[in-house]
Amino acid sequence: MSGIGVVKPQTHFFQEELQLESGEVLSDWQISYEMYGSMNESRTNVIWLIHALSGDAHAAGKHNEEDKKLGWWDMMIGPGKALDTNIYCVICSNVLGSCKGTTGPSSINPKTQKPYGLDFPMIKIGDMVQAQKCLMDVLNIPKFHTVIGASMGGMQVLEWAVRFPDLMSSIIVIASTSKLSAQSIAFNQVGRNAIMSDNYWNKGLYYDKKNIPLQGLAIARMIGHITYLSQEAMHRKFGRRLQDKKDLEYEFGTDFEVESYLKYQGTRFIKTFDANSYLYLTKAMDYFDLSNDHGSLDKAMSLIKSKSLIISFTSDWLFPSEQSLDIVHALMHQGKEVSFCDIETDCGHDSFLISEEPLTSLMKGFLDHV
Amino acid sequence: MSGIGVVKPQTHFFQEELQLESGEVLSDWQISYEMYGSMNESRTNVIWLIHALSGDAHAAGKHNEEDKKLGWWDMMIGPGKALDTNIYCVICSNVLGSCKGTTGPSSINPKTQKPYGLDFPMIKIGDMVQAQKCLMDVLNIPKFHTVIGASMGGMQVLEWAVRFPDLMSSIIVIASTSKLSAQSIAFNQVGRNAIMSDNYWNKGLYYDKKNIPLQGLAIARMIGHITYLSQEAMHRKFGRRLQDKKDLEYEFGTDFEVESYLKYQGTRFIKTFDANSYLYLTKAMDYFDLSNDHGSLDKAMSLIKSKSLIISFTSDWLFPSEQSLDIVHALMHQGKEVSFCDIETDCGHDSFLISEEPLTSLMKGFLDHV
Repeated sequence: MSGIGVVKPQTHFFQEELQLESGEVLSDWQISYEMYGSMNESRTNVIWLIHALSGDAHAAGKHNEEDKKLGWWDMMIGPGKALDTNIYCVICSNVLGSCKGTTGPSSINPKTQKPYGLDFPMIKIGDMVQAQKCLMDVLNIPKFHTVIGASMGGMQVLEWAVRFPDLMSSIIVIASTSKLSAQSIAFNQVGRNAIMSDNYWNKGLYYDKKNIPLQGLAIARMIGHITYLSQEAMHRKFGRRLQDKKDLEYEFGTDFEVESYLKYQGTRFIKTFDANSYLYLTKAMDYFDLSNDHGSLDKAMSLIKSKSLIISFTSDWLFPSEQSLDIVHALMHQGKEVSFCDIETDCGHDSFLISEEPLTSLMKGFLDHV
Repeated sequence: MSGIGVVKPQTHFFQEELQLESGEVLSDWQISYEMYGSMNESRTNVIWLIHALSGDAHAAGKHNEEDKKLGWWDMMIGPGKALDTNIYCVICSNVLGSCKGTTGPSSINPKTQKPYGLDFPMIKIGDMVQAQKCLMDVLNIPKFHTVIGASMGGMQVLEWAVRFPDLMSSIIVIASTSKLSAQSIAFNQVGRNAIMSDNYWNKGLYYDKKNIPLQGLAIARMIGHITYLSQEAMHRKFGRRLQDKKDLEYEFGTDFEVESYLKYQGTRFIKTFDANSYLYLTKAMDYFDLSNDHGSLDKAMSLIKSKSLIISFTSDWLFPSEQSLDIVHALMHQGKEVSFCDIETDCGHDSFLISEEPLTSLMKGFLDHV
C-alpha cells in the first residue's frame, strides 16, 4: 500500500551548458524528477534521494490510478514512513547518463538531431552531482535537510558532501563505497564486454535498428544480479531446487530455479533499460575514487561538514562492510560526527530494497536528531 | 624447471560402447592420457590425477624439447616432488566431454561423420568417472594408490571413491564440493548464456564455419576467472592501478590493469578451448550432487573405504571451506579415516595452481602414510 498515491513526474530543461569533468560540455540537457510531500516555507525540509545503477526518479507512489508498480523505495517514503512526507519533502531525480528521463546516451544530440550513442561524453559521479546541483538551484532549495543514497546512489551522496559541504545538514550512505574494488571493476567490465560484443550493439548505434543488443544487456544484468544477492540468500531462495520438473532435463534449458530466476531478471531489465546507459553508468562507478581525487580518504572526509549515517549489510560482498568502515574511520579521524550500523542480514547488497526494518528505525532515529 | 622432461601423450580408442547416466550411449570414443614415472610390477603405485574444468591430460613435463609451456601441475609432479615419480606412476587423462584429445562435442559423431555439436549426449560427473574406469581396465591397474583432483577434478575423485570404493587406497580432494551451490550454478549459467547468445554459436554447429563463438566463450571465461580469484588477491594483484597510462582515458577501452588481465585470460583461453565443451562440462558440474544421488551426504560417504585427505583454501569463495567441511563431517559421522586442512591463503579457488607449499608437505605427509 502506497501512502503517496498518484505522482506526476516532472522534467526541467536546462539552457545553460553543463561543464563535465572530462572537459566536455553538455548542452540542451534535462533532468527528470519526482517530489513527495511539500516543501516548507523556508524550503529547509528537503530530503534529496539518489537512486542506484538501474533505478529512476520514480521512488514512491504510482503514475496513475491503475498503475500496479509502485516506486522503487515506496516502502520507505510516505506519511509516517522512514522518510516521513508529513515532515519532509522527498525529491528524487534520474541520474545523468541514465535513460529514464534525464539526458543520457539515448537522448537526442542537439548537434546531429540523432541519439548520442557513444558520442555522449563520458561522465563521472561528480558530473551526476553537478547536474543535480543545477536542479537544486532551479528548485530554489537553500540547503538539504538530508542527502540519501544506496550503492551508486551512496557514491553520489559522498561526492555531494565533499563537493558542497555547506549545502546539507546530514547524509545517509547505504551499502556503498568511496571507491570500487578490483573485483567490482572486473564484474562491471565483463558486463560491458557482454554488451559490446553483442552483434547488435553496432558500436552504440542501434537506436534506429530493428535489432538491439538485448542479449548482451541481459547477460550484464544477470552478472550484476548474482553480485547483488549473497551466497546464503541464493541458497535460501533457490538451493538446488529444480524448475517445474521432477528430474534433470539433460538439455541446455533451465534445470534449476536459480537459472529461471536470473533469466527472468535479465528479461525484465532489458525491456526498460538502455544498453549504452549501462556502459556509461558502470564506467562512472569504476572511475569513482575519493582517495585519488583528494590525496587520501581522510583528506576527502575532512571536507565534510554534515552529520553522517553510514549503513552496511553483513552479507554484502559487492560493497563489503569494510568499505563502509573505511569511510567511518576516515570521518572519525577527522573528528566528524558519524553513526554507523552494520546490519546483520543474509540478503546481500540488495538488502536496502528488501526489508523496511531495521533500516526504517535507523533512519528515523538519525533524522529526528539532525 | 620440469623434472619430467619430454612426455608423449597417448590415446586409447574404445570399441565397446560407453553407457551414460542419461540413458544414451557413446560409441567409437577415445581417451587421451599421459603418464609420468613407471608402474611397479604389481601396478600398485599409480596415482590417478584428475584435472579441473579447463585442464587437460598434460599435467607435467613438455611435449618437445623446445616446448616452453610445462604441464599444468608440473610444480607438483616429478622426482622428489609432492607426487614423487621416483615412487609413484602418475597418470592424468583428459575428461569426457572436454576438447583435449578425449571424446567431446567437437569430436566426430560416427553416425554422421561430422562433429557432434549439441548431438553429443549430456554427461555427468559419474560418466567421466565411468570412462576413466574403462581406461584403468585397459591399463590393467588393479587398484590405485591414490586418486587426486581439485575443483571439478575433486568432484570426480569423490564420485570415484563412492562408486568404486575397493579400487583405491586413498583419495585427495582439493578445493571441491559434493554439490554446487545456487550461486555457482548461477555463474555457470550466465557463462553458458554468453556462449549460446553469441551469434556465431549457431546452436552448436560452428565447427566448419569461418566465425565461431569466441566472444561468448571469452566472456564465460572472464566470469569464471573472477570467481577463481579472491577479492583480496585481486586487490593485491591489481588494486585500482591504471593500465599503461597516467590518467583515465574516458573511453570504453581498458583503463584498469584488472580489465587488461581479464581480457588477456579470455583471449588466451579461446585459442585452445571449445565453446560446446564449456557448455557440457559446466552442466556436468551443475548436475553433480552426491546427497541427492544417495539420499544424503552421510549415506554417500558411508560407501567410501579409502583414507581421505580433504583440502580447502580460506579465501576460496567459489567452493568455500564450509563445503569441504561438510564432506569431512559426513566422513567422520561414518567413522571414516579423514584428514582435513583449510589452508590459510588469500589466493582464492585457484590456490592449488599457484603455490607448492603447504600443499606439497600436506600431500607428501599423507601419501607416506597410506
